[in-house]
Amino acid sequence: MIYGNEEDKDMHIISILVENHPGVLSRISGLFSRRAYNIDSLSVGTCETSDCSRITIVTHADDATFQQIQSQLKKLVEVIEITGLCKGNAVIREHVLVKVKANDRAGVMQLCEIYRANIVDISRDTITAELTGSPQKISAFIDLMRDHELVELVRTGLTGLLRG
Amino acid sequence: MIYGNEEDKDMHIISILVENHPGVLSRISGLFSRRAYNIDSLSVGTCETSDCSRITIVTHADDATFQQIQSQLKKLVEVIEITGLCKGNAVIREHVLVKVKANDRAGVMQLCEIYRANIVDISRDTITAELTGSPQKISAFIDLMRDHELVELVRTGLTGLLRG
Repeated sequence: MIYGNEEDKDMHIISILVENHPGVLSRISGLFSRRAYNIDSLSVGTCETSDCSRITIVTHADDATFQQIQSQLKKLVEVIEITGLCKGNAVIREHVLVKVKANDRAGVMQLCEIYRANIVDISRDTITAELTGSPQKISAFIDLMRDHELVELVRTGLTGLLRG
Repeated sequence: MIYGNEEDKDMHIISILVENHPGVLSRISGLFSRRAYNIDSLSVGTCETSDCSRITIVTHADDATFQQIQSQLKKLVEVIEITGLCKGNAVIREHVLVKVKANDRAGVMQLCEIYRANIVDISRDTITAELTGSPQKISAFIDLMRDHELVELVRTGLTGLLRG
């Protein structure tokens, strides 16, 4: 639950606009692993133009290392733009799907109502809910859902856009 | 807008549970790029246990190639479990942040209301909205938002969990 801590000074979120060349993701993740930089979460999807993708990476590093990561990334030919995102300048969101045991269905539904989470699937044994929000909200929601026997969960990793 | 087409038989969604070793993402994306398998979207985040991550990859391949991809993935020591997700057996969701020009604020707000998208940021010149839903819904929403001069957008890539 690394994103739960709002005071985390070493957490950096980088949004990278890249050309859709084969292997670009492998080169970027390789750059991180070769230099032993840690990737906490990563998400990549299409963006406003079809020949580009936007990769959002969350990493933990001190400021000097982070400068180094940025300058290494800039050297890659496929990288068009690098933007640092933080709570002050960007909208930062995350999405989670959580599946829990349905032993206490009413309790789960109540929790989902409070967090405005949507129930997207229900079976005799399990309930799956989804929630979008700030990473802190997501972590708090997951934490409470653990009381109902967590079966599976998948977080997308952070994404964000600069404000204004 | 590759996910817009519901009839797309060659699209496969793989959910991979991996151990949190350094470089695992680089090995997996390297496996795809070395063999020229295409990654359409990828997202990786923490999952129910802190020493594992769940990676969701969307790829286009015929059935034979897809079998090959799966068996190659299984050979990696960090891979714990591979699950194929499809519309029938899983809840599949995507999240998008879209920033458009605010020339027609009322029009944008109306569109967001119809799609039940949330407006998460507003400035003099731009409006940023977020939407979670099926990839088809997301694509349709983006398509209509293009009428209001798209500034930036970021899609998380698909995530999903098996039903029940």
